[in-house]
This record gives sequence, structure tokens and C-alpha cells, in this order.
Amino acid sequence: MSNGVELVKNAAGRAVPTEVNGRKQVAFPGVGKHQVEGSKAAPPIRAARDYPANGDKRVADLETALRQCGLRDGMTISNHHHLRDGDAVALMALQTAARMGVRDLMWFPSASFPAQAAVIELMEAGVVHHIEGSMNGPLGDYCSQGKMRGLGVLRSHGGRWQAIQDGEVHIDIAVIAAPTADAFGNATGTQGKSACGSLGFALADSMYADHVIVVTDNLVPFPCVPWQIQGNNVDYVVQVPSIGDPAKIVSGTTQITRSPDRLKIAEYVARFIRDTGIMRDGFSFQAGAGGIALAFVDYLRRMMKDAEVKARFVRGGSTRYLVELLREGLTDYILDGQTFDLAGVESMARDPRHIATSPFTSYNYNGKGFFNQMVDAVVLGATEVDLNFNANVVTHSDGRLLHGIGGWQNCLFAGCTILAVPSFRDRIPVIVDAVTTLTGPGEMIDVVATERGIAINPRRQDLIDRVKGLPLPVRRIEEIQREVERICGGKPQRPRLRQNPVAVVKWVDGTVLDTVWQAVGGGI
Amino acid sequence: MSNGVELVKNAAGRAVPTEVNGRKQVAFPGVGKHQVEGSKAAPPIRAARDYPANGDKRVADLETALRQCGLRDGMTISNHHHLRDGDAVALMALQTAARMGVRDLMWFPSASFPAQAAVIELMEAGVVHHIEGSMNGPLGDYCSQGKMRGLGVLRSHGGRWQAIQDGEVHIDIAVIAAPTADAFGNATGTQGKSACGSLGFALADSMYADHVIVVTDNLVPFPCVPWQIQGNNVDYVVQVPSIGDPAKIVSGTTQITRSPDRLKIAEYVARFIRDTGIMRDGFSFQAGAGGIALAFVDYLRRMMKDAEVKARFVRGGSTRYLVELLREGLTDYILDGQTFDLAGVESMARDPRHIATSPFTSYNYNGKGFFNQMVDAVVLGATEVDLNFNANVVTHSDGRLLHGIGGWQNCLFAGCTILAVPSFRDRIPVIVDAVTTLTGPGEMIDVVATERGIAINPRRQDLIDRVKGLPLPVRRIEEIQREVERICGGKPQRPRLRQNPVAVVKWVDGTVLDTVWQAVGGGI
Repeated sequence: MSNGVELVKNAAGRAVPTEVNGRKQVAFPGVGKHQVEGSKAAPPIRAARDYPANGDKRVADLETALRQCGLRDGMTISNHHHLRDGDAVALMALQTAARMGVRDLMWFPSASFPAQAAVIELMEAGVVHHIEGSMNGPLGDYCSQGKMRGLGVLRSHGGRWQAIQDGEVHIDIAVIAAPTADAFGNATGTQGKSACGSLGFALADSMYADHVIVVTDNLVPFPCVPWQIQGNNVDYVVQVPSIGDPAKIVSGTTQITRSPDRLKIAEYVARFIRDTGIMRDGFSFQAGAGGIALAFVDYLRRMMKDAEVKARFVRGGSTRYLVELLREGLTDYILDGQTFDLAGVESMARDPRHIATSPFTSYNYNGKGFFNQMVDAVVLGATEVDLNFNANVVTHSDGRLLHGIGGWQNCLFAGCTILAVPSFRDRIPVIVDAVTTLTGPGEMIDVVATERGIAINPRRQDLIDRVKGLPLPVRRIEEIQREVERICGGKPQRPRLRQNPVAVVKWVDGTVLDTVWQAVGGGI
Repeated sequence: MSNGVELVKNAAGRAVPTEVNGRKQVAFPGVGKHQVEGSKAAPPIRAARDYPANGDKRVADLETALRQCGLRDGMTISNHHHLRDGDAVALMALQTAARMGVRDLMWFPSASFPAQAAVIELMEAGVVHHIEGSMNGPLGDYCSQGKMRGLGVLRSHGGRWQAIQDGEVHIDIAVIAAPTADAFGNATGTQGKSACGSLGFALADSMYADHVIVVTDNLVPFPCVPWQIQGNNVDYVVQVPSIGDPAKIVSGTTQITRSPDRLKIAEYVARFIRDTGIMRDGFSFQAGAGGIALAFVDYLRRMMKDAEVKARFVRGGSTRYLVELLREGLTDYILDGQTFDLAGVESMARDPRHIATSPFTSYNYNGKGFFNQMVDAVVLGATEVDLNFNANVVTHSDGRLLHGIGGWQNCLFAGCTILAVPSFRDRIPVIVDAVTTLTGPGEMIDVVATERGIAINPRRQDLIDRVKGLPLPVRRIEEIQREVERICGGKPQRPRLRQNPVAVVKWVDGTVLDTVWQAVGGGI
């Protein structure tokens, strides 16, 4: 027991709550050990007779739409985060609900950003009870301070689909920001002044929510093509002057790192993928939008050109670096979950080989397989990694919850998972004895690449065999750790945490992988 | 009671069974009167751990796949009909099941064709218990003779989606013929030697069936793009040398009628649409692939060019006549449910404005609206129409069930529904006192166009007002009927029917619209 919460030790040795926000939980039983049962969530059957005969579902404003959806206390409202820090719709929905006088809402965004920091006031005022979803920045810090009335629940993109699909989270009203839509509710992110690329993160919401509202600032005559969100799942359409700040939706500032150390990491990773033979005709990879990942893509692109190797597909989060690969004929397809810059948005809108995917296709573990199992290599970041290759992406070394999971956990199922991380940040070592928050079990992580060398997980004897004799700086992880500790003046301080759970981290199958504890201090 | 079947009179005055194949039925209560309740069907939750980690779901053959799906007596097996009379997969599935010794299967095709006449032997042998689905030709005749052990159930394309979605039909195993697929199960009809265009009729099957098998004769490396069928819904992939006869899949023989009378009907319809102002910038229409419909499209195309009018979209079944409209810039989009010829297949594969739709988007009444509500005019055929504009498309004048419903009922929700029919066929009048089988309630049908004039449903006073003073041969339907009866030597003979129900016709909402009775005679 901890602050009234009953805890149990899971298969990763982590103490996790047996119940979260009133719902019984299954403690993580090990990778691939959870036996699913039962049937998918079943949304209510609707009839066309209850919708406008001419297909025009527009209503005057968001308040009208929310009222007609039957908004009331305690409901769950969902939003997507494709507009990232430029989004205006999520806050619009919650603040409208506040004006309507409802309380105790559960907010269920696919991720939240600093732009939504005002949700803190709505939590203080009792309008929002708690948040389930990745919390980047201020909301994560608020949660870390133990101020949220419920527990935060962090899910990967695939895990969020799984939770909706399996009925673990029932969405009462989904409010979907749509850069372009028609009056029937078909919606796309590829066009419009607020274009963001894909709307895949809202797909599950549109399919499983009881009520669906599309909010757009660019209404086009039916049909809105492509219908990433199908109007057949939509109840109401609301036109607003602006759904967000285009400058922040696609920042256009995804930049390759200039740090020599980080460039070295990127080069090591590219060479590792080339020299171990993962880079071969028809291969595939995924890399994020961080500075190291982008630099890696740029290195690998040149290596692919030199070797005349073509990928079958690359997975996005897309940026102009992936788009270049496509344009230069170095890949047949980009399979893209979200677009990080304008080049990505434009490519998805115009190039039929740049394909929008959803968490269902790419990431959902509780299905008949998912695309990321077929990715040969994935390059990811981490805040911490331990000697057993367990990794953390959600909390900082001070224990504060400042990042979401994104597709990170789902990507671990690739053929070769590489964490590309600096060996220390702000003189704090990244390789630790034990991670603050377990986000990815070590058995899923194959390689840790730092500027001081590449460590291969001993479980991957096949990779260890393959690098023998290659000019790669392969070292044991303990060796890298010791070297860094010498430089940084010892092991990092353990974070000061209270025995009060503030959030849980779910594994891809819906089981509870770890607990996030209240941090001492905080405020960013 | 009729032959042990309890009957009730529905709102259309038709005697319909209260129970069909062991399932309680709702008698048609009038258009838009049925109150739906409950939740959609909920397929079982699966987990990726139970599928190959590398995403390769291929098994040796169809028998292996069916065995691993747990095929057993009494199950429901479904197929789609996009390969039309060229399909080899449905028969392959049922004959494999026969070899495996199972009995009493319910076969649930989206439609059946003469190519599948051998299913009669499987019914005689007890392998197949009965068929629910449109039956074109020999199977319909077999059903008409009262030889099927269960009742036939005829559903529109939208009604089939509705029945699956609402759990009225539970598919145990869907066997999906795929002109192109990858080993993960992603599948498309747009490419391959057996290309057929869209696979939309199989979409519900793939989403809701307990088990899904994809059968292909063109395996491509992952990803198969576009994934009209998502591999995430697929359990097994089977490679075979051939899924069908390409010559019959897209016959390439969709031809404009050469009959002067039928050309006249087509021209009347085109003029009606032009002169009543339905043909205007941004309008939309749908027409089938019959000779009159094609001629109509050709007339309208010329009128659109002359008037410099552009459609926003046209709905397919696509043929080269619709493709011409798209290529000539006379429509922004083709929204296509199935492709009838090679030009349609090629256009869908290459032109992003030629978009594959599904019965969910276009036709499903038990949803939040559907595309066909937004179509301005639809031109359809019929075997019979009565003085109240009630129409029949499934039975012939002799009472035999020889045709399916297709999307016909779903199309009736367009802004203006026009039946384009010859006033008689083989000296049998088409306008009758009462239709043999009610397939479409008269209140849904606005215009009956024959070579002897155009009759407008009195319920559409707005259309009657609009044609005043126009040079259109508008007449009362009774007048056309009398003229034809004079020519044909009187009213048509009533078909000789036994008081034994052999099939039912469902309305779009799942209620029972009419009964098909055993025909005396038969054999085609």
C-alpha cells in the first residue's frame, strides 16, 4: 500500500498499482506473456434517419455540438495531437465545457503540449479530473507534483489504440481538429492553412467514441479527399476561424544536430546498420525527428547512395530528410504516422508513395500483428538506460514526468532496436544502474550507441558475431558507464521521490509496466 | 402460417416471415421508422504474440488455413464478388471445405454468379446448408424452386454491411480473393493479373469475421499498397496459381445499348436531368453498367460539355464512360464501389481522383449517414414497377429469383431516383398493377422513364412543377401502362407461385421488406 493505493510487484520487479482511476489493472507479466480475452469495444449502432438527410452535419458552434452530444459531468473527452504545440482545438473544447459548467472530465489526448498548459487551471477548478495521455512539459510537471486528482496513464501510440479498441478507455466525445473537412464530416490533415499531414492518431477516437465532433477551419464541398477521418463516424461539424497556429503545427525547424559528439553517434549508428548488413536492398528503418536521428538519416542516405541500396520502406514521423530519400528513389515508400515538418506535409499531400498510416496498422499490439514488427532497424532516444538495457523515456533524472512515450515502445519490436544517446547530458550520466521509470524492457533493446562506443545487448549474440572484425567501436555497456562516471564525477544522484504514485506507464498490451512517483520539487 | 413459417403483414402490406433461419425478424415498419438499438458486433481481441513475429502469415494451402481457422460444421463462410463471374476463390473455399468433410455451412457471398453454380451440388450433398446473399442466375433459380434447406436472404450492399456490423450475420471465416497481397495480408484489387479494382465488398468481412484468409495469385513484398484490406485484420495468406479468369473478372464488354427504344430512354433521362436543373455545377450522379445507363452517361457527358457544367463527383460502378468524364475534367472525382471494366480498373490504379469506396462510406444505412444521400440523381433499372412506383429488381415476371439487389436499394436515397426501363420486355409489360417482389418502396422512387414517356411520382410535386413547359414527354404512369397493355395484349400474367417462402428481401435497415415465394417450374 502506498497512499491508499495497493501495489504489487510485476514481472519487471516494479511496484505497480492494482487499480488505476477505479479500474482493475493487470501487472506486466513479461513481454508476450499477457493472454488477452474478450471482444473489442462495440460502439452504439446509429441510423441515418437520425442525421440530416442531405448529409450536412454543421452546427453553429462547439458548444451546440457538445450539448447535442449530451456532455455531462464525468465524461471522457478526447483530442489528437497532430497539430502539436500549435493546437487550439483541445483547449477550445475543454474551455467550452468549462463555460457550460460541467465538472470532473477525464481528458484523453493522444498527447499534450505546453500550448495546453491552461488545462492546469481547469484541473484546479475541477472541470478536468485527470489526464490520461502523454504529457509533454508543464502538464507532466503538474502531474509529477501529485496535484492531479487521478493518476496519469501513459500509453504508447499503439497502446492508446489498444486501450480504446479493448474498451479500457471509453470515449464519450471525441473532438477532432481537422485542417480540412466537408459538411458530412470527412476530414484530412493533408490540406488547408493548418495542414498537419496525417490524422491517424484520431482514427480510433472516430471509430469507437460514442459521439464525434469535427472542428475545421477549412470547409470544402463533399467529398473531402482523402477522408482520413470518415464522415460516416462523425456526428457534428463545427467551423471555426482557426484550429491552431500553423507556425507551431509544423515548425519547419527539424534540424540535424551540430554537436560533434552527437554527429559521431549518428555516424556510428549508420555505420553499424551498414556494416552489419541490415542495410541491404529491400530493407526498412525508422528514425525519429530528434537531432541525432535526423543526422543518422542523412549519413545513411549517403551510404545507401554509395552502395546503390534501396529501401522498401521507411517509417515516419516524416521530415524533409525522409522525403529526400523518397524523391531520390532510395525508398519505395514512406509509411508515415505523423509529419514533423512542412516538407513531410507537402509530400504526403502530393506523393502517392508517401502514405498515411494509423496506430492500428503500425503499432497496435492487440491485433493480428502490426507494421513495426517488419521494420529492420529503428533508431530511438532515451533519457536513461541501465546495464540490462532497460530504458526510460518519460522521466528525467530528477524523476519528473516531462515526456510522452509516443510510438517508442511500439518501435521496440523492430528487428534491431538502437538507442542513440549521448553518454551524458548536463554532466549527468545516461547509463545508470537502474532506470528511474521503466518504459522499455531491456530484452527489447538491442544496441545502445553513444559517442564513446556501441554496446550490444548480450542477448543478441547474432549481432555480436556480426560485428566481429568490423571497424566499429563496440564496447561493453559497463565499460562505457565506468568511463562516463569518471568524467562526470561518479554515478548520478538518485531522484528524490515520494512514495505516492502520480502516474503509471502501460506496456503495449495494456498491462502496467511501471509507476511514476511524486517528485520532490518541480515547476518548470 | 405458410409451410410451417409464421407470417406477419408488414407496413408495405407484404406477408413476411417472423423468423428467418432461426433468427427473429423485424417486419418492415415503413421507411425511416425502424428504431435501432444496441451495439455493433464486437470481434474478438487478438494479440500479436499469437501471430508470426516477422509478419509472414503465409500457410501452405487453403485447407491448412481453413483448418487453422477451426473450420467446423455449421459455420458461416463469406466471400466477395469483385471478381464477378470470373471468381475461382469462393468455389475453391467451399469445395475445400467439402473435401475436409464439414457440413451445413452457411455461405455468405456479397453476391453469387453462374460461375458458382457448382454450389448447387454442395447444397445437394449437405456441405452448404443455404446461401444468404444475392443470387444471380442458377443459384437463384435453385432457391426459387424451394430446394435450399434454409431461406435465401437478399440484402443490398449497404444492407450486407449493416447485417455484419449489427451482428445479424456472424462470419466465422472470411475467404478474400486478392488480386495482389503481401505476406502480412494487406491486399488490393487495383493490381495483378486478376485485378478487379476495389475490394470494398470484402471490407466488412475483414473487420468483423472471427478469422480472415487472404487468397492471392500475386504476392508482393510488404507493403502492398493501397491496403484496401488491412493485413492487421488478416490471419492467414494463401498463394494460389490463379484466383480467377481475368477475361470474366473485367469483361471489357460493357456496351452502350444499340436498341433505338433504349437509346431514347437514355436520352429522355439525360434531358430530364439537364432541363430540371439537376445538372448544374457541382452536381453528382450515379448510373449502373447496363446498356441504358451507359447510354445515359454518354448523352449527359455531351450535355455537360455543351453547357460547360462540371460535376463534383460521380458514383461508380465505374466503366470507361465514367472514366472519360474524369479524364475530360467533367467531374472532380469518381467515388467507386466496384469496377466493371478494364478502363475502370486502370483508372482506379493510377488516378488519385478515382477513389475506391466501401459499402460503409456509400451505402450503410445504420450509420451516421452515407454518401449516397448526397447524390443528386441516380439512374437505375428494374424488372417491374407498379402504379405506386413500387419496384422490383430481384424476381422476373415468372416469379423466379434471378437477380441480386446490389446497391440498388441504397441508391434510392439520392435526391432524384430515376428508373430507366423499357415499357415492355419480350412483350411483357414492365409497369404492373402490383410488383411480384417489393424491392424498393414507391415513396423512394421519383421518376420512371420509358421510351413512351416519363412518369413523375405524384409525391414529387417539386419535380412536377419544374417540368412544366419543358419539352419533355411527361405522362402519368397509368397512361403509359394502358398504352403498353394495348400493345402487349393485356396485363401480364401473374406468376404462378406456391405459398412456400424461399427467400426474403431485406430493407436497408435490416427489416424484412418482402418474401420471395417458390416458383412453379424453373430451371434455366
